[in-house]
Amino acid sequence: MLHISQANIEQAATRIQNHIHRTPVMTSQLIDEALGVSLYFKCENFQKAGAFKSRGAMNAVLSLDTSQSAHGVATHSSGNHAQALARAAKIKGLPAHIVMPENAPEVKISAVEQYGGKIYFCKPTLEAREQKLKEVVAKTKATEIHPYDNYTIIAGQATAAKELLEDHPELDLIICPVGGGGLLSGTALSVHYFSSKCKVIAAEPKGADDACRSFKAGHIIPSVQPNTIADGLLTSLGERNFPIIKELVTDIITVKEATIIQAMKLLYERLKIVVESSAVVPLALLLEHGIPINAKQIGLILSGGNVDLKKLPF
Amino acid sequence: MLHISQANIEQAATRIQNHIHRTPVMTSQLIDEALGVSLYFKCENFQKAGAFKSRGAMNAVLSLDTSQSAHGVATHSSGNHAQALARAAKIKGLPAHIVMPENAPEVKISAVEQYGGKIYFCKPTLEAREQKLKEVVAKTKATEIHPYDNYTIIAGQATAAKELLEDHPELDLIICPVGGGGLLSGTALSVHYFSSKCKVIAAEPKGADDACRSFKAGHIIPSVQPNTIADGLLTSLGERNFPIIKELVTDIITVKEATIIQAMKLLYERLKIVVESSAVVPLALLLEHGIPINAKQIGLILSGGNVDLKKLPF
Repeated sequence: MLHISQANIEQAATRIQNHIHRTPVMTSQLIDEALGVSLYFKCENFQKAGAFKSRGAMNAVLSLDTSQSAHGVATHSSGNHAQALARAAKIKGLPAHIVMPENAPEVKISAVEQYGGKIYFCKPTLEAREQKLKEVVAKTKATEIHPYDNYTIIAGQATAAKELLEDHPELDLIICPVGGGGLLSGTALSVHYFSSKCKVIAAEPKGADDACRSFKAGHIIPSVQPNTIADGLLTSLGERNFPIIKELVTDIITVKEATIIQAMKLLYERLKIVVESSAVVPLALLLEHGIPINAKQIGLILSGGNVDLKKLPF
Repeated sequence: MLHISQANIEQAATRIQNHIHRTPVMTSQLIDEALGVSLYFKCENFQKAGAFKSRGAMNAVLSLDTSQSAHGVATHSSGNHAQALARAAKIKGLPAHIVMPENAPEVKISAVEQYGGKIYFCKPTLEAREQKLKEVVAKTKATEIHPYDNYTIIAGQATAAKELLEDHPELDLIICPVGGGGLLSGTALSVHYFSSKCKVIAAEPKGADDACRSFKAGHIIPSVQPNTIADGLLTSLGERNFPIIKELVTDIITVKEATIIQAMKLLYERLKIVVESSAVVPLALLLEHGIPINAKQIGLILSGGNVDLKKLPF
């Protein structure tokens, strides 16, 4: 049971299309020559609010009925879902109550404020986030929009890979980063419905390898004290995401911190684009492990570009 | 006498089209709303070798006859013309002899080496560059390709504004940076030939304001001890560039260093692209002085993206 149909994804694409960018796909002759493959970078760093999260948040907010939206929306997020939800709520004229860890990047905090979201800070642990969100929801009666463990969110995130496959139906592999599994489960669904030959592999930081271990174990293993520069990939897999991932994803492969930094530098220098550390983990996979499943035409989802430019790691 | 005809520019566009990118034009809803105009950023930072200079260099190298190309090409350049010429020479199978100031950014030096250019270092003054280049040309018999004071170079650089006007014929103003005047004279020529209503204004760092002073005086005033972060804009106007600029350019306006840094940060944060300091001077003009000539639809040429990422000024 995948819970999300092809029609659900197509409806999501139609629902959100006036409020998100159809992002461009970039290529680099130099990186292609170095790796001996053709890479297609889906530039969600150019997406509204700077990340793919705008797709899911927009789909979720536009899917609410009147009673669900009466008191606005609420969530906890380390950053990109936070600003995406604040933006989506603003577009629909709803209040957004956002629980954020106190160590979230400054650029993400100020973006949420700019979209008119009301921020509630908490300790940077999953438990503290969930506790604070419970309090906020109890007080405001807002509808919780989980960052990834939510089918309308997943259907929205799926539209990135749908677009990529429309532009490049020849792809035989798409690699995307995995944190909670919203982008990964959505990507796997789009590949399942919109391509007959393409596979999906996820890339994960070794310092936050709970998804890789969960995938091998066959059940969700929570993320405990993750430690990686890729601050968008710290969370545990969601209960709605994991069954989809288990059924449709070919592999989850981990990468070292040094390779993530190397991949990030490469994209700044060669593609001349600003991407955040979580976004480059798929390229790091290719740099560290070579080309999986003998793929020739590989799509990589550059998930976002919201980086604190004062803290570039290279 | 403009010395370059509409046909010269059209021929240049055809000549180089297989060796350069038709670069994308980006927009930012947020910056547009803040300034109350529509801005169209011509992204030459995504150009081959990372700058518009690939256009002129490619046109110049492909225009050489057999006797001119027999001993390769030579030039002096602070960076972007250097790697563009090295790349163009490599494509045509010619040696490239490149004189560079010893303080050129590391990223630009290594790019020239990567394209197989032979580098000759000199002191960072115009006199030292010209002296060293004379020696190199005498020794190698290579044909000098001046970075900007050369009609085939100017016709090549003109193709950026030609493309921008093809994509956005509604533009009423194009702003570009000015150093030696290669991009500016080319831009002014394309606007003259390909638009009936568009104007051209140049933006220049206050710390290297020789073009502004020359424009007001009506004759070339050399650049003496310029001091600006925009290291691509240090040179004096060329003899072939100045008459074109004098005839076709509406104004040259200077900007402060702090505004250049502010504009650079804005583009990294909002457009999520990597641009060099020289490229953002046109946006700095709008931030510092407001909108000139009551323009509504403004094209800005983002001249390049070759920046030392370890030395971002913000």
